[in-house]
Amino acid sequence: MKKISLLGATGSIGTQTLDIIQSNREKFKLVSFSAGMNITKVREITTEFQPEIVSVINSTDASVLQAEFPKTKFVYGKEGLIIVAAHSNADMLVNAVIGSIGLEPTIEAIKEGITIAIANKETLVAAGDIVMAEAKKNNVALLPVDSEHSALFQSMNGENPKRVSRLILTASGGSFRHLSRSGLKDVTVQQALAHPNWSMGNKLTIDSATMMNKGLEVIEAHHLFNMPYEKIDCLLHKESIIHSIVEFEDTSMIAQLGSPDMRVPIQYAMTYPDRIQMQNAKPLKLEEIGTLHFEKMDMERYKALALAYAAGREGGTMPTVMNAANEVAVELFMKGEIPFLQIEEIVERMMNQHEKISSPDLETILEIDSLTRKMVYDKVK
Amino acid sequence: MKKISLLGATGSIGTQTLDIIQSNREKFKLVSFSAGMNITKVREITTEFQPEIVSVINSTDASVLQAEFPKTKFVYGKEGLIIVAAHSNADMLVNAVIGSIGLEPTIEAIKEGITIAIANKETLVAAGDIVMAEAKKNNVALLPVDSEHSALFQSMNGENPKRVSRLILTASGGSFRHLSRSGLKDVTVQQALAHPNWSMGNKLTIDSATMMNKGLEVIEAHHLFNMPYEKIDCLLHKESIIHSIVEFEDTSMIAQLGSPDMRVPIQYAMTYPDRIQMQNAKPLKLEEIGTLHFEKMDMERYKALALAYAAGREGGTMPTVMNAANEVAVELFMKGEIPFLQIEEIVERMMNQHEKISSPDLETILEIDSLTRKMVYDKVK
Repeated sequence: MKKISLLGATGSIGTQTLDIIQSNREKFKLVSFSAGMNITKVREITTEFQPEIVSVINSTDASVLQAEFPKTKFVYGKEGLIIVAAHSNADMLVNAVIGSIGLEPTIEAIKEGITIAIANKETLVAAGDIVMAEAKKNNVALLPVDSEHSALFQSMNGENPKRVSRLILTASGGSFRHLSRSGLKDVTVQQALAHPNWSMGNKLTIDSATMMNKGLEVIEAHHLFNMPYEKIDCLLHKESIIHSIVEFEDTSMIAQLGSPDMRVPIQYAMTYPDRIQMQNAKPLKLEEIGTLHFEKMDMERYKALALAYAAGREGGTMPTVMNAANEVAVELFMKGEIPFLQIEEIVERMMNQHEKISSPDLETILEIDSLTRKMVYDKVK
Repeated sequence: MKKISLLGATGSIGTQTLDIIQSNREKFKLVSFSAGMNITKVREITTEFQPEIVSVINSTDASVLQAEFPKTKFVYGKEGLIIVAAHSNADMLVNAVIGSIGLEPTIEAIKEGITIAIANKETLVAAGDIVMAEAKKNNVALLPVDSEHSALFQSMNGENPKRVSRLILTASGGSFRHLSRSGLKDVTVQQALAHPNWSMGNKLTIDSATMMNKGLEVIEAHHLFNMPYEKIDCLLHKESIIHSIVEFEDTSMIAQLGSPDMRVPIQYAMTYPDRIQMQNAKPLKLEEIGTLHFEKMDMERYKALALAYAAGREGGTMPTVMNAANEVAVELFMKGEIPFLQIEEIVERMMNQHEKISSPDLETILEIDSLTRKMVYDKVK
């Protein structure tokens, strides 16, 4: 029985994680979780899974829920996230929150020696060096949940990582892949949220439309697989069937493929190194798909990706700034306060203004992150 | 330094094996080899690699060569093959002969405890149960060299074989994939020998055109991976880029891909579980290929494949008969003595006539093999 803590239980990855736990009660038990403002869902999850600890955003919700569910301990806020993440009774933390808010809870869980299934890419982008060093120090495994990184991880199974010559992240191209840059000027939030292949959370879908998502993934891959940026490539593959590819020194390539179903990489992280049957799954039939397409990634069309490579190569606090600026810019775009193309303009401006600090400590990263957010809000308002 | 014995040194796989040894002198040494009638090539290889033992087909050639190369021991005939294969100084036997002639040498090598890199699929088809049981008894690894089986083997690396739900062998469709069955009536040897993707030996190219090659591979996969036939599928994939695919119980698929270069699987078997750089290789660029196609395998169009599945499922001596009949029929087709479609007719007729012996011993298999060959020759002449 693997005891699971879950950050971000009401989001897309969180909901699917709960599905997997529910389908495999003899294998998994939910011992704690965090959620945001959706208190109805918190009630449902608490009733269903009877966890030991639950964290919500504000104290009022926590008090109300505490009265309703006396057997569960309710906590709240940033501190609540950390309590859930570092719950010492858990064997694994599934970190499925969005944004660098997941950074401190991740570090605290690592210090508790809890295996991390990480879907929270912003944490690795904002502070990858620190997170990976802490994981190494505490001998804690970080298992990828992102479909691309899970694909790379599965493809490297049993292989000597020193023999890897290239990681190839595939990219669908997002909701605007049919548009040229000039066509992006007046796109709406609604259009941006219509991803052609994957059903994902909103932030991720916007990040896919800008290709910043692939940029975050490049930096995530750099950290998770300890791979230099010149060995990480991106490839346009509009069907999202091949989830990513590893090339080895003998030119052999191993790829992981399948229907676009996020439960597969989530469950793989939860059962690794074993696999279990996927409930209600639709196995991929390549003969039904018929054709797979591949295209060179266009760094001019997808400027955000070029910015992410630049931030990653620069290192230090630069990816922290890039990520914080992007998080706020996406939020502003979704609120209708800035047009689509301004997302990457904001990211670029913040990066240009920033004087990189090399080898920052966690406190510095948190400060820079917070400062960048404030600057973006101030400029736009 | 890994010491290599090589059966079939002058054929397509043999020549490429020698290339790999030549490019990696610090890793490999050729200690013995067998060849057929190409004595000029035997001289070249002997001069270049200074092996301890060489086997040729007839005694006259052996005597002449012995006088020329006093430091090497020359042997000949079927016995010579066995002496080379079971050369106790070798760490690995690369078995690259064509046909069930490779069966006894393989068994003798296994008894000597020599790891086998097997390209000789007919041996596994004719007597897979016996070969695999002998390998198990002697704790000897059989490493696949066929590109499809190497792909499956690489894709299962680090995985629990019990979690495999399906092996998917890809098939280019061979030289006549654009023709319907009626179009196959008058095809010539020359047309059959023009394979669209791979440069291979003649027998293999004809087997690809009839799709019997995929049938032999299905039976080979059954034995190598201990997989029931209902879990082995074939998929038409005309570009031969994805070399095969493994589907797991969680619906995740792992595939191995690359440019069609047989040196990759040969070298992988030779360096397993490690990999080394491939000399003068052209890494695959999917963005240059652009499109990959997949199509359901058509068992009526490719009747030989259906026959192979039937033979495999029947088991016992049935695959032995199928293989022997096919070997002779292909030989007769290449000599211009029978038309293309008669290859599968002969195979089918021989299978229909045969009364299967379950759990045959090696002697029975060799007898049935020889008897079937004689019957095919007699009927045609």
